[in-house]
Amino acid sequence: MKSKNVYNLRAILAPHFSSTGLLVQENATGQRCLLSFLDAVLRGIGQVMLQNNSYAGVLFLAGIFYNSTLFGWAALFGAAISTATAMLLGVSRARIDAGLFGFNGALVSIALLYFLEAAIFTCAYVVLAAACSTIVMAALLNLFDARKIPVLTAPFVFTTLFFVMACARLGHLHSTSNLPIAGLPKIAIIEGVVTASTFAEGLFNGIAQVFFQGNVVTGILFAIGLLISSRVACAAALIGSSTGLIVAWSMGAAEPAIRSGAFGFNSVLTAIAMISVFYVLNISSALYGLFAMITTAVMFAAVSAVLEPLGMPALTAPFVIVVWIFVLAGPIFPKLQTA
Amino acid sequence: MKSKNVYNLRAILAPHFSSTGLLVQENATGQRCLLSFLDAVLRGIGQVMLQNNSYAGVLFLAGIFYNSTLFGWAALFGAAISTATAMLLGVSRARIDAGLFGFNGALVSIALLYFLEAAIFTCAYVVLAAACSTIVMAALLNLFDARKIPVLTAPFVFTTLFFVMACARLGHLHSTSNLPIAGLPKIAIIEGVVTASTFAEGLFNGIAQVFFQGNVVTGILFAIGLLISSRVACAAALIGSSTGLIVAWSMGAAEPAIRSGAFGFNSVLTAIAMISVFYVLNISSALYGLFAMITTAVMFAAVSAVLEPLGMPALTAPFVIVVWIFVLAGPIFPKLQTA
Amino acid sequence: MKSKNVYNLRAILAPHFSSTGLLVQENATGQRCLLSFLDAVLRGIGQVMLQNNSYAGVLFLAGIFYNSTLFGWAALFGAAISTATAMLLGVSRARIDAGLFGFNGALVSIALLYFLEAAIFTCAYVVLAAACSTIVMAALLNLFDARKIPVLTAPFVFTTLFFVMACARLGHLHSTSNLPIAGLPKIAIIEGVVTASTFAEGLFNGIAQVFFQGNVVTGILFAIGLLISSRVACAAALIGSSTGLIVAWSMGAAEPAIRSGAFGFNSVLTAIAMISVFYVLNISSALYGLFAMITTAVMFAAVSAVLEPLGMPALTAPFVIVVWIFVLAGPIFPKLQTA
Repeated sequence: MKSKNVYNLRAILAPHFSSTGLLVQENATGQRCLLSFLDAVLRGIGQVMLQNNSYAGVLFLAGIFYNSTLFGWAALFGAAISTATAMLLGVSRARIDAGLFGFNGALVSIALLYFLEAAIFTCAYVVLAAACSTIVMAALLNLFDARKIPVLTAPFVFTTLFFVMACARLGHLHSTSNLPIAGLPKIAIIEGVVTASTFAEGLFNGIAQVFFQGNVVTGILFAIGLLISSRVACAAALIGSSTGLIVAWSMGAAEPAIRSGAFGFNSVLTAIAMISVFYVLNISSALYGLFAMITTAVMFAAVSAVLEPLGMPALTAPFVIVVWIFVLAGPIFPKLQTA
Repeated sequence: MKSKNVYNLRAILAPHFSSTGLLVQENATGQRCLLSFLDAVLRGIGQVMLQNNSYAGVLFLAGIFYNSTLFGWAALFGAAISTATAMLLGVSRARIDAGLFGFNGALVSIALLYFLEAAIFTCAYVVLAAACSTIVMAALLNLFDARKIPVLTAPFVFTTLFFVMACARLGHLHSTSNLPIAGLPKIAIIEGVVTASTFAEGLFNGIAQVFFQGNVVTGILFAIGLLISSRVACAAALIGSSTGLIVAWSMGAAEPAIRSGAFGFNSVLTAIAMISVFYVLNISSALYGLFAMITTAVMFAAVSAVLEPLGMPALTAPFVIVVWIFVLAGPIFPKLQTA
Repeated sequence: MKSKNVYNLRAILAPHFSSTGLLVQENATGQRCLLSFLDAVLRGIGQVMLQNNSYAGVLFLAGIFYNSTLFGWAALFGAAISTATAMLLGVSRARIDAGLFGFNGALVSIALLYFLEAAIFTCAYVVLAAACSTIVMAALLNLFDARKIPVLTAPFVFTTLFFVMACARLGHLHSTSNLPIAGLPKIAIIEGVVTASTFAEGLFNGIAQVFFQGNVVTGILFAIGLLISSRVACAAALIGSSTGLIVAWSMGAAEPAIRSGAFGFNSVLTAIAMISVFYVLNISSALYGLFAMITTAVMFAAVSAVLEPLGMPALTAPFVIVVWIFVLAGPIFPKLQTA
């Protein structure tokens, strides 16, 4: 499977690379070369939505570049740094080739450039953080392996929260207006009126927000990327985003937050994980997955409020927490079949 | 043991149920019927104080109804929802029959109706939260099983904190005045004068507060429920409540908090767990248990202050944290004998 | 090794103890005596910097007494209480003799007297907390043993945070001006100008702050203590302190914090752990350790900001978190050799 994919990729990318013979070194002994590194980086970007597929990675990247050149480069750069760190430390080729050491770096990089002002110094900080996400990934892989708990985007959440939080003590790093202002949680009031356009925009923004992009076209490109990789994953993402929207609307969340996809992106990830990755799809697992998506939307509200005194965003922590709980609970429920 | 108890219960409840033959379907093949479901629900309410005993559950329920009809129904409703969720997901009958999937639902339900205004919408939210507590319970049962760590009321604490916290983002849910106001921890000042009546009321309020009830008669009914189930558990509860009171008073806690039983209910649970459930009672384990009770009262002060910036209550988190630590430490201390 | 060391110690301490024959009871049956208890206490103080060496303990103690008699006694007292608690609970002699049940007690005792006003009542509170640190230590030893995760100073961090936090509800305990004031994290501004004297003082203050001592001579005495125990550990401590300084300075941390050693002491501990304890020293592990030291300095900024709404200090939590992550990640990186 893997080598086939690399061949396909090489065929696609050949016009760009055939001129530089040095870069194409793959031979009988299987030496690592730039193409397989690029493939790992693209799969890493695909793995952000749990797709071990470099074509999905290419479409996710296209979606990001469509919205922002900065974040497009950030995703590539972050995935490359964290993958390269893993290679330097001798991580097994199977794990690197599957993109397992790329997705957290990609997200950490986008997140830091979303919340911190872009500057030379910030770039150095991103390198440090992306490399750090590789260590956290390795630690959680080792810790969770025996328990069969998936690591998900926990290294991204952990690394980003700590590296952004540290800026409150480091004068050379400046936050952007995207970072929430620290405050004490207050009672919610209903803001704005939810209309059909809230749903239409929210549906695709919810998918786009997985990479911090608030752009409907980006969301559509992401959905196409998912479709190429797995029809079930694509359907799950759309259902997950809708579920997040509906839960948020029915419980009285603020309209701008619903429209922006804030209540959707965690449910998108939960849906992909529960419906298309961890369980065999049947009535029981579909209902179990739906319950997890609903819980994820509530959890987003909760985590967002819990982090308010720190002025920190929820990131994908709600997805990670809910899927950990639902996957850990699985073996107690015999009606669910692990995929 | 189990079937005998169901028979006794049926004898007691017969006047209410014999008229409806449909409800009594237990036959040679052991089909689940409403009576065994009711028994599981009552045991679930008993398990809030670690008693696998439906009579204890009946007395706890009587104590709650004595103080508040709303909370009485809430306890029954919550335990029923979380137990039914477990049954739908195919949890093993032994676990359901022991009430293991009822106690967190009962507490979640009471807590949400204590901290949130009662409304139709809140009821739907309670259903979601109680069902969610079942998933958290299953996750922790699976995670802790190999380590022989008891789950205790952790699913209740976790689920309640997140579902109440989420209301800061959800406009259709409104908190009551029972919810602490978010603020920054300040230096403590001594409030009020502790008298004999503080102790007399605090002793039984401490037991009653396990179910969020501030009522001396309720506390006495709970103590009778414990006595029916286990004399040691009843004695432990009284000693635990007293220890919480004395620690709080000697360290200068506020008199109204002491009188209300706030410093007692976690120590009550710690006492029952350490003295009557997890260790064989001897001098060593009694002293170890006393140390755990004292630590629990300090931990209540700490957790209550830690959660102040979030405006969240400590619930039974101090009990859970302290018993986890003391039980995990047990195997290192050869003088303690596990029950 | 152990008995040899006790003999040496006895030779050193003989003038003080030979007059009291009762204290020297070690005989063929290996009865525990005051001297071996004293040795365990001194090793406990040595273990604060991961040195199972009573001479290191003596020099650390000398360094503390040089700066403050109160904290000198506090260290001895705390280590004695936590070690005695472990003995009463029957902990195996090997663990006690290695000082494993002394270092957390020593640190808890110093920390509580640093953050709380010294008074009779505070002393009783210190006894409770130091004994509690022994239970937490046992719990973590049991929990982490199978995973080969070192406990480090986690029991100290946990116990101190909870016992200081509890004072927000306990009127008889009063905090000193050393305790941070609770507030919401704000954007960092660059304070002061870093000069050569910032570095010179910061280097040794960073080592001294491991025991909460802001004193250059104390730091030098600590370094000598490390040198006696292990030249590699001493070099690691100096490199760790320097790394913390340089990271903090390059990222724009406040000059007074850099001078005080605040950004150094966690990196000192990380350096000792990563370079001289857990890994065989080679190029790979040295670079890995350096990465861990840099991450620790960033983590200090983060943890310090995370705890700001609670008004709590970071203590050695950054060291504990970073070393846990880097040690857990180790097995995934085949270039690292576990010591």
